[in-house]
Amino acid sequence: MENRLTLNQALERIAPVEQQRLDAVQRRIDSQAKPIGSMGRMEEFARRFVAMSGRESIRRKVVFTFAGDHGVTEEGVSAFPKEVTPQMVYNFVDKGACVNALASHVGAEVIVVDMGVDHDFGELPGVLDCKVARGTANFTKGPAMSRQQAIQALEEGINLAARFKSEGVDLVATGDMGIGNTTPSSTIVAAICALSPETVTHRGTGIDDEGLCRKLSAIRMALDCNRPDPLDPLDVLAKVGGFEIAGVAGLVLGCAAVKLPVVVDGFISTAGALIAHELHPHARDYMFAAHQSVEIGHRHMLERIGHIPMLDLQMRLGEGTGSALGMGLIEASLRLLREVRTFDDSGVTEGADR
Amino acid sequence: MENRLTLNQALERIAPVEQQRLDAVQRRIDSQAKPIGSMGRMEEFARRFVAMSGRESIRRKVVFTFAGDHGVTEEGVSAFPKEVTPQMVYNFVDKGACVNALASHVGAEVIVVDMGVDHDFGELPGVLDCKVARGTANFTKGPAMSRQQAIQALEEGINLAARFKSEGVDLVATGDMGIGNTTPSSTIVAAICALSPETVTHRGTGIDDEGLCRKLSAIRMALDCNRPDPLDPLDVLAKVGGFEIAGVAGLVLGCAAVKLPVVVDGFISTAGALIAHELHPHARDYMFAAHQSVEIGHRHMLERIGHIPMLDLQMRLGEGTGSALGMGLIEASLRLLREVRTFDDSGVTEGADR
Repeated sequence: MENRLTLNQALERIAPVEQQRLDAVQRRIDSQAKPIGSMGRMEEFARRFVAMSGRESIRRKVVFTFAGDHGVTEEGVSAFPKEVTPQMVYNFVDKGACVNALASHVGAEVIVVDMGVDHDFGELPGVLDCKVARGTANFTKGPAMSRQQAIQALEEGINLAARFKSEGVDLVATGDMGIGNTTPSSTIVAAICALSPETVTHRGTGIDDEGLCRKLSAIRMALDCNRPDPLDPLDVLAKVGGFEIAGVAGLVLGCAAVKLPVVVDGFISTAGALIAHELHPHARDYMFAAHQSVEIGHRHMLERIGHIPMLDLQMRLGEGTGSALGMGLIEASLRLLREVRTFDDSGVTEGADR
Repeated sequence: MENRLTLNQALERIAPVEQQRLDAVQRRIDSQAKPIGSMGRMEEFARRFVAMSGRESIRRKVVFTFAGDHGVTEEGVSAFPKEVTPQMVYNFVDKGACVNALASHVGAEVIVVDMGVDHDFGELPGVLDCKVARGTANFTKGPAMSRQQAIQALEEGINLAARFKSEGVDLVATGDMGIGNTTPSSTIVAAICALSPETVTHRGTGIDDEGLCRKLSAIRMALDCNRPDPLDPLDVLAKVGGFEIAGVAGLVLGCAAVKLPVVVDGFISTAGALIAHELHPHARDYMFAAHQSVEIGHRHMLERIGHIPMLDLQMRLGEGTGSALGMGLIEASLRLLREVRTFDDSGVTEGADR
């Protein structure tokens, strides 16, 4: 593809969403025949979507499920074996997974992005080959990836945003698949927010108490061994991140660069969004936080970014399941914006709340 | 219509949803290729819907927006004049209101039920004439309605459930329209839960401080003058309720009687659901609580009924806007149940969480 954006070019392009654009949409909402502010966060979703993208309706929606493997699975940090990463990729392609059901429900496509699965998929329809390497290195013993690999992975994500926007996609969502990936996600938030591993580490797919001890120990080793620099988000990503997390981070930055609204899924996706946020303070302007994950480190990430999740359904799966549902709420909010009549049009008497 | 159910017949028909039916659905969910419990409340929604109705998919969905007027508006308790009740009914029929946009979004019909609007609509397509009277009496000076009128209104709601279930509707939602109706709703929860008016009274559509004082004063007068008996929910409904609230209460009871799942909207609808709950403890088995309203009395109602809302979007409109969105989540949960493959079917290796 011609005109690929580099990381630095993307960062340079990111501009804040202008307050006057937000205000203009809100004025329109306030003219509609309902008490001022009574649609609550639905008004926020519509206001932000229109102000960031300039659009009032959505043509195509895509959930990008970024997949990658993790060397740290050697430490016994997950309830599932790492073979499940490629198995689930095949399940996504066969439309048999939770993200497929929820994406169908909201009318979105699922596209799997192979950022670093330890498996050769060959040419597989529904999977984009953006593989940087066959899994990260075990970050308890050294960096998960090189700084150059981190930049490469970010740029893969960035260019998905640019490419799909040009193909008529108006809303994207992030998702993840990678056995072991709550471990790097916890490590990233511990490093960036200077929090103890205990505060941000939970049971992932469902490990028992012994597994949780191994996971905490792996995170402590990763931090001790790598000393990621919280002021250098690329350093954090390279040393204790993952390829699918980097893909999410890149997508979020790319979306901000090309003004494409992006719904960020739960714990792993928000680890990526956190890296993007640390790389550019206005990346957050183009994000929607889909849902509150059960993972205990998630709220620390969201607080740092400064977003309140749209949903709290006690979910903890990833894949893009929460972000698919979030897309549905954004679409509903645009329907309100487009279809609800004003006091003038409807002949309804205005209230004293104006 | 033949075979109309009386209130007592409906109450006699209500049976709990059996635990073994719930367990059977959950076992099926647990065989799907995902960590146990990882779809959180989406699993609860599917489990409850299937256990209560015996169905796994939804043919027709209807939002019933119950409308009624309130004599207490004479006391200056609302930011809007009471003419807005019939104006909004016309707006619903013309598909120009928020509930229309959100119902369209989830593929549901909106049917307005005139329970007691102070206006003659004549024959108006989209409006069911179940009018009990042209608005309630001003309950600061005596009962809002007679006990017989309360029973009549409940039976109108009950028979909607029976009739629409027989017409292939598999999920219904409640909504309300009635200027002044947060005042009876606050009064109902104050009476039933023995709470002070201050604890449960908020700004409704947006009254100012003086209006809030008038509203609190009206509620105190209503309680002093009528002395509703909290152990007799019909007495509470008749003395300090409203016709649209009675319609919601009836619909909820009717749904429980005929095993039709019902999504209950925000503050006013939950006042109706609370009456239903006090009339039969297993009415709650067939309800979904759509969303947390901004109205401060709402959480007390939900706690009493024992439901946690599906959404918290800071909404405070009524009409059925929250319940329409709730329908979408239930439909999504059924999609997961029907479409997600099992470990066996998908060839994904099971985890140690089983």
